[in-house]
Amino acid sequence: MDGPAPNHECCLIKMADPLKRLISFLPILSWAPKYTRTEAQSDLVAALIVTIMLVPQSLAYAMLAGLPPQVGLYASILPLIAYALLGTSRALAVGPVAVVSLMTAAAVSQIAASGTPEYLTAAITLAFLSGIVLIAMSVLRLGFLANFLSHPVISGFITASGILIATSQLKHILGIKAEGDTLPHLVTGIYQGIGGINPYTVVVGVSATAFLFWARKRLKPLLLARGLKHRPADMIAKAGPVAAIILSIFAVVGFGLVEKGVKIVGEIPAGLPPFAFPSFDFGLWQQLLLPAVLISLVGFVESVSVAQTLAAKRRQRIVPNQELTALGASNIAAALSGGYPVTGGFARSVVNFDAGAETPLAGAFTAAGILAATVFLTPLFRFLPQAVLAATIIVAVLSLVDIAAIKRTYEYSKSDFAAMAATILTVLLVGVEAGITAGVSLSLLLFLWRTSRPHMAIVGQVPGTEHFRNVDRHQVITDPSILSIRVDESLYFANARALEDAIYDCIADQSSVKNVILLCSAVNAIDASALESLEAIAHRLDSAGVGFHLSEVKGPVMDALKRSDFMQHFKGRIFLSQFEAIKSLSPLDQRTLAKPPLPTVAGAASLNPSD
Amino acid sequence: MDGPAPNHECCLIKMADPLKRLISFLPILSWAPKYTRTEAQSDLVAALIVTIMLVPQSLAYAMLAGLPPQVGLYASILPLIAYALLGTSRALAVGPVAVVSLMTAAAVSQIAASGTPEYLTAAITLAFLSGIVLIAMSVLRLGFLANFLSHPVISGFITASGILIATSQLKHILGIKAEGDTLPHLVTGIYQGIGGINPYTVVVGVSATAFLFWARKRLKPLLLARGLKHRPADMIAKAGPVAAIILSIFAVVGFGLVEKGVKIVGEIPAGLPPFAFPSFDFGLWQQLLLPAVLISLVGFVESVSVAQTLAAKRRQRIVPNQELTALGASNIAAALSGGYPVTGGFARSVVNFDAGAETPLAGAFTAAGILAATVFLTPLFRFLPQAVLAATIIVAVLSLVDIAAIKRTYEYSKSDFAAMAATILTVLLVGVEAGITAGVSLSLLLFLWRTSRPHMAIVGQVPGTEHFRNVDRHQVITDPSILSIRVDESLYFANARALEDAIYDCIADQSSVKNVILLCSAVNAIDASALESLEAIAHRLDSAGVGFHLSEVKGPVMDALKRSDFMQHFKGRIFLSQFEAIKSLSPLDQRTLAKPPLPTVAGAASLNPSD
Repeated sequence: MDGPAPNHECCLIKMADPLKRLISFLPILSWAPKYTRTEAQSDLVAALIVTIMLVPQSLAYAMLAGLPPQVGLYASILPLIAYALLGTSRALAVGPVAVVSLMTAAAVSQIAASGTPEYLTAAITLAFLSGIVLIAMSVLRLGFLANFLSHPVISGFITASGILIATSQLKHILGIKAEGDTLPHLVTGIYQGIGGINPYTVVVGVSATAFLFWARKRLKPLLLARGLKHRPADMIAKAGPVAAIILSIFAVVGFGLVEKGVKIVGEIPAGLPPFAFPSFDFGLWQQLLLPAVLISLVGFVESVSVAQTLAAKRRQRIVPNQELTALGASNIAAALSGGYPVTGGFARSVVNFDAGAETPLAGAFTAAGILAATVFLTPLFRFLPQAVLAATIIVAVLSLVDIAAIKRTYEYSKSDFAAMAATILTVLLVGVEAGITAGVSLSLLLFLWRTSRPHMAIVGQVPGTEHFRNVDRHQVITDPSILSIRVDESLYFANARALEDAIYDCIADQSSVKNVILLCSAVNAIDASALESLEAIAHRLDSAGVGFHLSEVKGPVMDALKRSDFMQHFKGRIFLSQFEAIKSLSPLDQRTLAKPPLPTVAGAASLNPSD
Repeated sequence: MDGPAPNHECCLIKMADPLKRLISFLPILSWAPKYTRTEAQSDLVAALIVTIMLVPQSLAYAMLAGLPPQVGLYASILPLIAYALLGTSRALAVGPVAVVSLMTAAAVSQIAASGTPEYLTAAITLAFLSGIVLIAMSVLRLGFLANFLSHPVISGFITASGILIATSQLKHILGIKAEGDTLPHLVTGIYQGIGGINPYTVVVGVSATAFLFWARKRLKPLLLARGLKHRPADMIAKAGPVAAIILSIFAVVGFGLVEKGVKIVGEIPAGLPPFAFPSFDFGLWQQLLLPAVLISLVGFVESVSVAQTLAAKRRQRIVPNQELTALGASNIAAALSGGYPVTGGFARSVVNFDAGAETPLAGAFTAAGILAATVFLTPLFRFLPQAVLAATIIVAVLSLVDIAAIKRTYEYSKSDFAAMAATILTVLLVGVEAGITAGVSLSLLLFLWRTSRPHMAIVGQVPGTEHFRNVDRHQVITDPSILSIRVDESLYFANARALEDAIYDCIADQSSVKNVILLCSAVNAIDASALESLEAIAHRLDSAGVGFHLSEVKGPVMDALKRSDFMQHFKGRIFLSQFEAIKSLSPLDQRTLAKPPLPTVAGAASLNPSD
């Protein structure tokens, strides 16, 4: 095993100074002491914008998770404070997000019916468990696990979740009852309920959706064209959902829409978030553990991707392991204040960043803003139509759907596409947890499958250089008495036999070959199984009177070979470079430049379908 | 994706001639038409020796599987005929083997109690299912799955199974009752039963074990020293178990040992194997499917390893995919004639080969010999002590225990050792199926983990060559304005972020670096996630005013890059070789030969812990 890949965490570990160690655990200490008035102003403005955006989103995502609306607000207060203390990103905004809300609904609805106290307790417990999982991952330094979620799987997961979420909200837009966790169920439910459509709800819902789409796409350019400056135009455009909410509340009250069947949010208890306790029922923990792990992983990946993107723009760095701690603490804070699982959201963090947030204090200011809304404004939301919240969700999640990425992935790599397609189809047809599991499993299996069938090429010398390339792709110099094979993969148990077969096949009918050189420039490791295969090859070639040599063996591989008894039995030579190998094994006059390849090479040309 | 790795099956597929296709399916047609009298003589002698060896082994392994003794004989008749028709190995001898018998006992005892008709039916059904699984694997060309069982996992599995089997037989040697599937249970059972030891059984059992060990290790050298020729000496030594059986039967009858509590085999029904039907109960199939898959995989690996080893000695080849068909047919034949799962056995195949078997007809002759024994000799075995069968098993399986392999693996590779240790401990403490599953899972996870943390090296030019090696291991020429990084792994989702981190860290404080060259000689693939990382690196370096270039990109990787839009955005250059890259980017006078490395390189020296 080689040493760990380097990362900047090493630098933190190396700091012997206890103060620096404290800073690495409490990143707030790195910026709070030098906090300036200018930074405070920027942070306050950003907090105001994010608050305006977060209040309706929090209500909406709580509805998506099947929870009372105030739970969304609770989940947007203490978690922000916890992240401000512990997080390494200057701009990340944590809180309820669409995909995690959907995953919460999927997990918790297995345990209790939406609307019951048990449902709320399960959601709170899920947040608590996610917090513990994230902190455990941080302590065990398991942040690297997130790397096993490939980009196509994440992209497919988010696209499919977006489609699923948007479809699940259609019932609110249409004013019908419909249940279901999968796309076929949702569509069937809507189809069956289509007779009970409430026309008033449809008018409210469709116009809210249309307005929100317009505000998102067209309003800012329009305002800019009218001469507004960038920042006010942006703020007004971002306040679109607030306008929709205010207008719809007026419409409900003014036209008496409640009596006409338009569903409203209803009374939201005003006041501070309660102090809540998660359940410590072991049976419940067992049921929620897998969802908690998946929510933690998905949340961590979403959060870190956003944080890294934003940090890179200002040449700052985030520390993934510390992010695990911060998100863990945020989730525990959510659980203790009656909230549900949270993570760093994409849209709100970008808004926070664009609005000029300089430090995590912007998050704390946002928390204060939402706290104020929770204490003072909730009575105003009583007549807010559910259809408008659904419209907010639909507009938000459809922006996550990325169909172009599917096409791009299909063109680039069929195996990446297969993993992506499996993720999308499983999310839509089975569920979110099954989808992410299927995607990760398939992408790992396809990687293993590929490495178990390594690409191999017969190589020759590029004229005028010391460089060797595939005989089928380049015009190269070869020697009929020497077979140079490059294997393009680390040698391990899954491909050891393929190597044996390939070499035996290559030399089977080539009586002119006196030496085989295995070019190991792409062999990054040789495990015990492959070592036995190499011994078998050496033995077999030796008894056939053919020399077997290695070239360009890397340092770590050579170290491992020296630890085994391979070198004692090995009769061939190990060359520093392929050029040196050819120089010492091949008399100059036998070498020929040929294209198409020489017969000695053509016999094994089936080796090289592509390289 | 690259094309499949070549193997000789291609040759068979290419044969358009229908006769040749028939031969590839019925390998018997390739040798039967030219069968000679000399070959017949060799085959007959080999069959005689193997029959003498197989009769006691078949009875013993049936006992190990918890089945009536005649079932072992039944499993050694029709399966041999089926393999003779379809198999590609000239020397493989199929039948009941120790590890598969243990796995059968473990699987079937979950379903019924040993000795009941349901137990026998389940064992027969297991053989049938294994047959179907093997044939399905052949049709779907899934033989490659066996490659995922690494050598250390197989070796650990066989060693642990040997220890488990030997321990499970101790109760028969001691004449006590003891149950258990795991080592702790077995040891506890023996400890608790130790008071009920039957001294007569112990005398018979221990002397049989001692005699068999002696016959296996010392008898042949002794006979050779007395002037016997190789073959008769070998035959006599191999007949050791037969001698032990005959002597012990005489002892039981002569000394009236049955009355003194020595357990005997009892009456074995004489006659042809019955025509049996597997159960078609769907519930039973569900319970047996996973064991059937594991038995098929383990049996296939054992069988193919033996067959390939023996074929290589005579420069013959076996066709793994056809072996799947042959073993599948053998298991179905076993099921239809009242037997239980079979595979190619190591010891018996080596004996068959050493005794001179020339064609699979030797197997058919052996089948005839065992059929004769089944019809005529079973009454003779009535008084055979169970302790002697147990001794046969113990001596056979302890020869499979390979402690030296554990030490060798530990020294060569800690991750191979971890997989091996996990396999051994899980087999001993939990069970055979859990053991093989744990070993395979852990070896795959460790492989993924290793590839997710790729080794990277900063390289420089080896003086006087066009070759580039690690600055920390070789005295090389570098240029402070150029950073050449070699990444020793294919770039895929699990390591894409590690690459980004490493490159950012390398250039972080090195203001002298104007160009970064990523040497891709060991990069065998770049997936969609890694492509995004490369784009991110290119973008970031570009905005820092540093050039980013690639060198020695392989053909298949280049093909994939061309399919994406990477090349349109990429501002750097792609060089055929690292030497060419340096030549065109580095003014000659800036290059310096240095050891210890230059400051520009030392700053990132932590990159290279080992290479």
